[in-house]
Amino acid sequence: MSKEALKIVTIGGGSSYTPELIEGYILRKDELPIKEIWLVDIEAGKEKLEIVGAMAKRQVEAAGLDWEVHLTLDRFNALKDADFVTTQFRVGLLNARIKDERIPLSHGVLGQETNGAGGMFKAFRTIPIIGQIIADMKVQCPDAWLINFTNPAGMVTEAAIKHFGWKKTIGLCNVPIGHRKVAAEKLAIPEEELLFKFAGINHFHWHRVWDDKGAERTDEVIDMVYGPQKTEDENHLKNIHSAQFHYEQLKDLGLLPCGYHRYYYIEDEMLKHSIEEFEKGETRAQVVKATETRLFELYKDPALNYKPEELSQRGGTHYSDAACEVIASIQNDKRTDMVVSTANNGTIQDMPYDCVVEVSALITAHGAEPYNWGEMPSAARGLLQGMKAMEETVIRAAITGSYGAALQAFTINPLVPGGTTAKTLLDELLYAHKEHLPQFAEKIAEIEANQPETVAYVDELMKSN
Amino acid sequence: MSKEALKIVTIGGGSSYTPELIEGYILRKDELPIKEIWLVDIEAGKEKLEIVGAMAKRQVEAAGLDWEVHLTLDRFNALKDADFVTTQFRVGLLNARIKDERIPLSHGVLGQETNGAGGMFKAFRTIPIIGQIIADMKVQCPDAWLINFTNPAGMVTEAAIKHFGWKKTIGLCNVPIGHRKVAAEKLAIPEEELLFKFAGINHFHWHRVWDDKGAERTDEVIDMVYGPQKTEDENHLKNIHSAQFHYEQLKDLGLLPCGYHRYYYIEDEMLKHSIEEFEKGETRAQVVKATETRLFELYKDPALNYKPEELSQRGGTHYSDAACEVIASIQNDKRTDMVVSTANNGTIQDMPYDCVVEVSALITAHGAEPYNWGEMPSAARGLLQGMKAMEETVIRAAITGSYGAALQAFTINPLVPGGTTAKTLLDELLYAHKEHLPQFAEKIAEIEANQPETVAYVDELMKSN
Amino acid sequence: MSKEALKIVTIGGGSSYTPELIEGYILRKDELPIKEIWLVDIEAGKEKLEIVGAMAKRQVEAAGLDWEVHLTLDRFNALKDADFVTTQFRVGLLNARIKDERIPLSHGVLGQETNGAGGMFKAFRTIPIIGQIIADMKVQCPDAWLINFTNPAGMVTEAAIKHFGWKKTIGLCNVPIGHRKVAAEKLAIPEEELLFKFAGINHFHWHRVWDDKGAERTDEVIDMVYGPQKTEDENHLKNIHSAQFHYEQLKDLGLLPCGYHRYYYIEDEMLKHSIEEFEKGETRAQVVKATETRLFELYKDPALNYKPEELSQRGGTHYSDAACEVIASIQNDKRTDMVVSTANNGTIQDMPYDCVVEVSALITAHGAEPYNWGEMPSAARGLLQGMKAMEETVIRAAITGSYGAALQAFTINPLVPGGTTAKTLLDELLYAHKEHLPQFAEKIAEIEANQPETVAYVDELMKSN
Amino acid sequence: MSKEALKIVTIGGGSSYTPELIEGYILRKDELPIKEIWLVDIEAGKEKLEIVGAMAKRQVEAAGLDWEVHLTLDRFNALKDADFVTTQFRVGLLNARIKDERIPLSHGVLGQETNGAGGMFKAFRTIPIIGQIIADMKVQCPDAWLINFTNPAGMVTEAAIKHFGWKKTIGLCNVPIGHRKVAAEKLAIPEEELLFKFAGINHFHWHRVWDDKGAERTDEVIDMVYGPQKTEDENHLKNIHSAQFHYEQLKDLGLLPCGYHRYYYIEDEMLKHSIEEFEKGETRAQVVKATETRLFELYKDPALNYKPEELSQRGGTHYSDAACEVIASIQNDKRTDMVVSTANNGTIQDMPYDCVVEVSALITAHGAEPYNWGEMPSAARGLLQGMKAMEETVIRAAITGSYGAALQAFTINPLVPGGTTAKTLLDELLYAHKEHLPQFAEKIAEIEANQPETVAYVDELMKSN
Repeated sequence: MSKEALKIVTIGGGSSYTPELIEGYILRKDELPIKEIWLVDIEAGKEKLEIVGAMAKRQVEAAGLDWEVHLTLDRFNALKDADFVTTQFRVGLLNARIKDERIPLSHGVLGQETNGAGGMFKAFRTIPIIGQIIADMKVQCPDAWLINFTNPAGMVTEAAIKHFGWKKTIGLCNVPIGHRKVAAEKLAIPEEELLFKFAGINHFHWHRVWDDKGAERTDEVIDMVYGPQKTEDENHLKNIHSAQFHYEQLKDLGLLPCGYHRYYYIEDEMLKHSIEEFEKGETRAQVVKATETRLFELYKDPALNYKPEELSQRGGTHYSDAACEVIASIQNDKRTDMVVSTANNGTIQDMPYDCVVEVSALITAHGAEPYNWGEMPSAARGLLQGMKAMEETVIRAAITGSYGAALQAFTINPLVPGGTTAKTLLDELLYAHKEHLPQFAEKIAEIEANQPETVAYVDELMKSN
Repeated sequence: MSKEALKIVTIGGGSSYTPELIEGYILRKDELPIKEIWLVDIEAGKEKLEIVGAMAKRQVEAAGLDWEVHLTLDRFNALKDADFVTTQFRVGLLNARIKDERIPLSHGVLGQETNGAGGMFKAFRTIPIIGQIIADMKVQCPDAWLINFTNPAGMVTEAAIKHFGWKKTIGLCNVPIGHRKVAAEKLAIPEEELLFKFAGINHFHWHRVWDDKGAERTDEVIDMVYGPQKTEDENHLKNIHSAQFHYEQLKDLGLLPCGYHRYYYIEDEMLKHSIEEFEKGETRAQVVKATETRLFELYKDPALNYKPEELSQRGGTHYSDAACEVIASIQNDKRTDMVVSTANNGTIQDMPYDCVVEVSALITAHGAEPYNWGEMPSAARGLLQGMKAMEETVIRAAITGSYGAALQAFTINPLVPGGTTAKTLLDELLYAHKEHLPQFAEKIAEIEANQPETVAYVDELMKSN
Repeated sequence: MSKEALKIVTIGGGSSYTPELIEGYILRKDELPIKEIWLVDIEAGKEKLEIVGAMAKRQVEAAGLDWEVHLTLDRFNALKDADFVTTQFRVGLLNARIKDERIPLSHGVLGQETNGAGGMFKAFRTIPIIGQIIADMKVQCPDAWLINFTNPAGMVTEAAIKHFGWKKTIGLCNVPIGHRKVAAEKLAIPEEELLFKFAGINHFHWHRVWDDKGAERTDEVIDMVYGPQKTEDENHLKNIHSAQFHYEQLKDLGLLPCGYHRYYYIEDEMLKHSIEEFEKGETRAQVVKATETRLFELYKDPALNYKPEELSQRGGTHYSDAACEVIASIQNDKRTDMVVSTANNGTIQDMPYDCVVEVSALITAHGAEPYNWGEMPSAARGLLQGMKAMEETVIRAAITGSYGAALQAFTINPLVPGGTTAKTLLDELLYAHKEHLPQFAEKIAEIEANQPETVAYVDELMKSN
Repeated sequence: MSKEALKIVTIGGGSSYTPELIEGYILRKDELPIKEIWLVDIEAGKEKLEIVGAMAKRQVEAAGLDWEVHLTLDRFNALKDADFVTTQFRVGLLNARIKDERIPLSHGVLGQETNGAGGMFKAFRTIPIIGQIIADMKVQCPDAWLINFTNPAGMVTEAAIKHFGWKKTIGLCNVPIGHRKVAAEKLAIPEEELLFKFAGINHFHWHRVWDDKGAERTDEVIDMVYGPQKTEDENHLKNIHSAQFHYEQLKDLGLLPCGYHRYYYIEDEMLKHSIEEFEKGETRAQVVKATETRLFELYKDPALNYKPEELSQRGGTHYSDAACEVIASIQNDKRTDMVVSTANNGTIQDMPYDCVVEVSALITAHGAEPYNWGEMPSAARGLLQGMKAMEETVIRAAITGSYGAALQAFTINPLVPGGTTAKTLLDELLYAHKEHLPQFAEKIAEIEANQPETVAYVDELMKSN
């Protein structure tokens, strides 16, 4: 594989994150011999693609670079001879996310766009498309790397590697980046002098930290960030309500949680907060949609040729930077220490050998080389194993279109309370997303025919949207 | 070990189940060369011990047997040279169970006396006592078998085997017996012509069934018991509300659930039903307490010398029979096919090697020889692994008295919704059970000193009891 | 599957063992509603088939049974609607075994027809044929059970289950039967009152034994059979030289070995003995060939209608009886305790999940249900894992015809000393067996073209045969 | 732990390797703020200690450093407040190694001072001493790092970590260093641009290599180093005869072997060569002893103040350099990529979780962080598992002094041919090393009393030494 003149293709190129991605490439211009950037989107995203594409071109030009920026709706041809393919698309756009969150919340259940009811539906919509993209890649660019930051990133990456057979896939998330920064700040030690080890799955991982004298500092960071004396907000994630973890529980665990653990460790408060947002019409999806609208207004400005400050409100900040760093690390065999979704292969002892985990790894020219992690303490192990089994069931449902598998996934998801509510939610979400779920078409038709109350409920709820 | 003249010691001998146990021995009089039966209880249970002990003596006499029945409060001496020790005690008696159920339900949370908030507290109260019993046994009867049917039977058995080092422990439960009967009935095949394999943990296991032609019939039994056409009540357990499992989910799973899976698979309905019971002052604990009162009235009748029919209302029916059958099988190397809690040792692939599982096994003279089970389908695997991790954390808290571990257990228990509710419940239950939780004494004193609202809430709630 | 009128097909029906098989069926006539027995052989075995077939008919007739006995060279049609298929064929007949043993011994290396150099070549010749038989069965009798007692039984069974996908395969061996009898005799306890657990792989397993009081007696049996005071020959196997195990080593192990462990535990003496036999022209293969000739002379006697005593000299005694018992146990769901080769699925913790192991199991209508075994003590574990890896490599070579894989297998086989000897032996055996190794045809042609010394050596050695 | 003024203690300070160690420290003087170097030896090594100690002082002085170099026979006091303890001692000096090699070879069996009969006896002599050193360290320097390069390095390190509980132990070997150099040279790529992954156990590991384009080059290196066209000697190890690996076998394996694999993969040739050396009185031990004598003559020269060229003939070249680099990496949190013996914790999937493996790792301030390796191909897996089981048995024998365990280890060691030879060798070596094997004293007395032929044989053989 010649990597002299890189071609990078971004699926979902019309995303509001694209300017950050372009900025990331520009920052690494000495490491990345880019020749072509292809931004690919679908018909429904054409307008956004044009706005953001124009913006990208201005960024490149402002940087004095000769990179070609191509905009296209023709994915298959865009992929020809690509070196790197990044995926950041959202099937059904933000309206789909609004359904993912509002329908569950209308029943008093967390939507949670990554691992909850909403995340499961995002997986149902996204995984078949990843399968199609990989089918295209097998023909057009069989040696390319697939850098996925489409959520739910863990499940999408597992589907890509294990089910669609694309070994050269790396999944990315910005959450670990924030946690590294917090720990460094609290310990008042430069981040690069600390050694972090993360392990778990996407949006459900823990970490430990050591200083350059070899002392483990995890427990101290727990004290400083989650201790009883703590008053200010430590939270660097914009998209998660900062309810307080229970200090004694974290001390018992001996691991630092990730922000999303709030949905499991303090589910009741997170739910209460989400219901308040829902009632005010301010679910995260609705807020993000408004932010996006503002961002696209900014992007339209032909004078704007740099990433605007407002993008950092978007929640996914650092995401694109992580993607650029992975690309630069593969390209240059940098052996950078990053946290990525990759094949487990025994890295975490208690997890299926062939599943995808999110762990600390060196990013080399041949991909991720994870540090071995070993066993989890049992209080973390059980939850993690439960989540992985749920993920496996979601992926199976997404690929087969089995209603039983989907109901199974809803039943065993810890954020969805049991069977009857699970079934109601499942049916409503299937109907609500029907245009993006061809694999479930038969069941959806059945719901439309036989469950008028399901149809009426969703139609009414979404009307108010 | 000579087993010519058996000595059987029952800890918690004053239990209302004792007559069933005695009946079980009598039914197996040809297999069991019993010389002495010792019923042991504590001061607080003295009256019940005397009533039930007198009844036991009448049963033995009516059977024309010369077995000695001894009643005592002196456990240590009673254990001298015992061959079998059975445990069926309840620390704090039924009043403790009432607290276990009512306090959580007052916050809209399932108490569930085995694996829920209530079950965790029953473990906190019981495990230290099992440790003391085993300490006595090491001195008095180092070769005896410990047959445990004290709940939560799985955790108590794991503590006995793994933490207190008593390898010759077998844990028992009546739940599998009922499920075998249901399947046999539905298939219209004699139970002994079917081959069942159960695997999981106590009150959280699944099973498969084959007929004598070698055909697996699991799926058919799912259809017949849980299928859409089903109208009547298939439930043989008196102590679990018969909410309907979701048929499609069970079909997807391909395994038959146990009755207690309702608390996980259809948590919302089970919770709703429990709250209704709570509001009517008819929690299971309260109902059982009333049943017990009636039973002891019956037992007082000097003319009663057989197990009364009413005992079958008690919920634990078949329990004592299972215990007698285990004893007879060990005594006679019968190699009976039973479902017991025993050391995993790899029987279920996905579970810790050194944990206790509940599985189908042959009961031989040297104990349980489980059939190998192998891997679980992932939708069962994840839940089971999560429950085991919770159990491990409960046992650790029970033994160490660590508040952090207890909070951890409450946090990760799937029947307790997250941290804030978990902490509230934990504190209230600690205070409520203070006389039976010496290992948590320091924390309880702190609660009493600093959390007047916790104290007041519990006092008020229990007043109405 | 109706099993009212059984059809049993035996591949390799012309074997000298067939009369024992027929006798076994006759002994179980009340359990086995046989209608047809088909004895299948190949052109080269036609004469033997006719002799032994006539004998089989006389046996059936003498028993007063109306079973049909068919003789045929048409395997495909014979398999039509079979209920049970038994395999006892020997590709290349006993002459092939003579080569398997004599060529290695001519270099001072054990041939060992099961797990040594000879056994590996027997696997190379046999596994492709098992693949062809299963291909026929998929068409002709997709529900039939395959009962394999063709050696190397472990590798052939693993190939059948794991590579050719025939899950309903059970592999059999007579070795454990003899060990059970020895232990019972030494302990002076009826065999059925003992409980045995065997674990390992074919011809490489250990066992433990308990009495009906629950006491483990393994150590005592080690003392009695292998102790220093032992003088007489305990060995019930006719085909293994009874060199003395080292007592202290077995005591340290705490498990009873099988007879074939002599080749590994006291390799030097076994080798010395084999070389002596070789020099006298009395390798086991040669002895067996002479026995066979005598047996066929006997079988020709039209008056002989029962299994002659001489057959017990053959080495494989009890083999056919085991096969008949497996068939009867499946047919009648007898849940007989037997030692069989079956899928591991975690039965032995330290072995690959998907490999075939030889373990104690209940034989039910749906096949073997092994008792869980768990971990091996490390001194047994390492050897066993090494042997399994060798088996996996042999099977891979047998199926792919890869010379590298074959050389790998020879290199890692503990009975073959390292690379140069290994390569010499491999090349000579490839050439010697060329008519039965189509998968290696290309490499063999190369040897014939380029290695005249190999050709000359084998031709010369075999001339003297 | 303050690491401002380092104290480094070397057990076995009188070793001929010490000058290389000192040179290594001097080369890293900017990274290592050394204050004191303590060279510790025993009475029998006093003369060598003085010679080499004087040499070390001259080296330090010549480098213009103010480091203190202390010589002592008082290990306990020397260890006080040590930061790093390195171990390079040889119980019984080179004469013991001569016995380890010559006694087995006199029976035509490889001695092999690391994993063969000789290596097992080196473990028997060394492991108890490591236990004593660690007992001292627990008192004197509980935070120190133990850097072990005493052979057999893998077993000694496993004993230190798993049995004596010193988690801060790192085992080292120079073999991987040579293999890295060979691959870099053959590929004509600077070593630092390649990424290597090693996995296995000490003197029994394999490796893979990737270039900075991400391409795996393992197969090419196999071709270039071991291919049929190869004529010259690729071997960088001075202590292993360069017999040719079989190319087809390595190609099938797909991994690069280490030099010591010759003893297993081409055992026959290695044995032949060793017997030739033995017959000429030129076993490796004898050669090394002569080299040592020459080295000490050189060291006596008061003008010599640098490591003499001749030391590189000694076989252990790079060893000390590796030790210095580990120390510098821990001290400075360098995260250097090295191959070390460390706790497995699941790094190699197929090996016991709690054993020690030799793997690629980053060396950080808190020790080794191995890259995850995952599963081995089965042809490597089986041998490796077998070797580990042998190591575990050796360690058990070394600690308990059980003769049965020692015989077990000899029986299952693949370089020792079976039981009778094994027992003979074991008894002879026990007698030969009696002064260094107090744990086996009782058995040795028995041998002296009852086995005059053993005594006579060894006495005679050693006389000729």
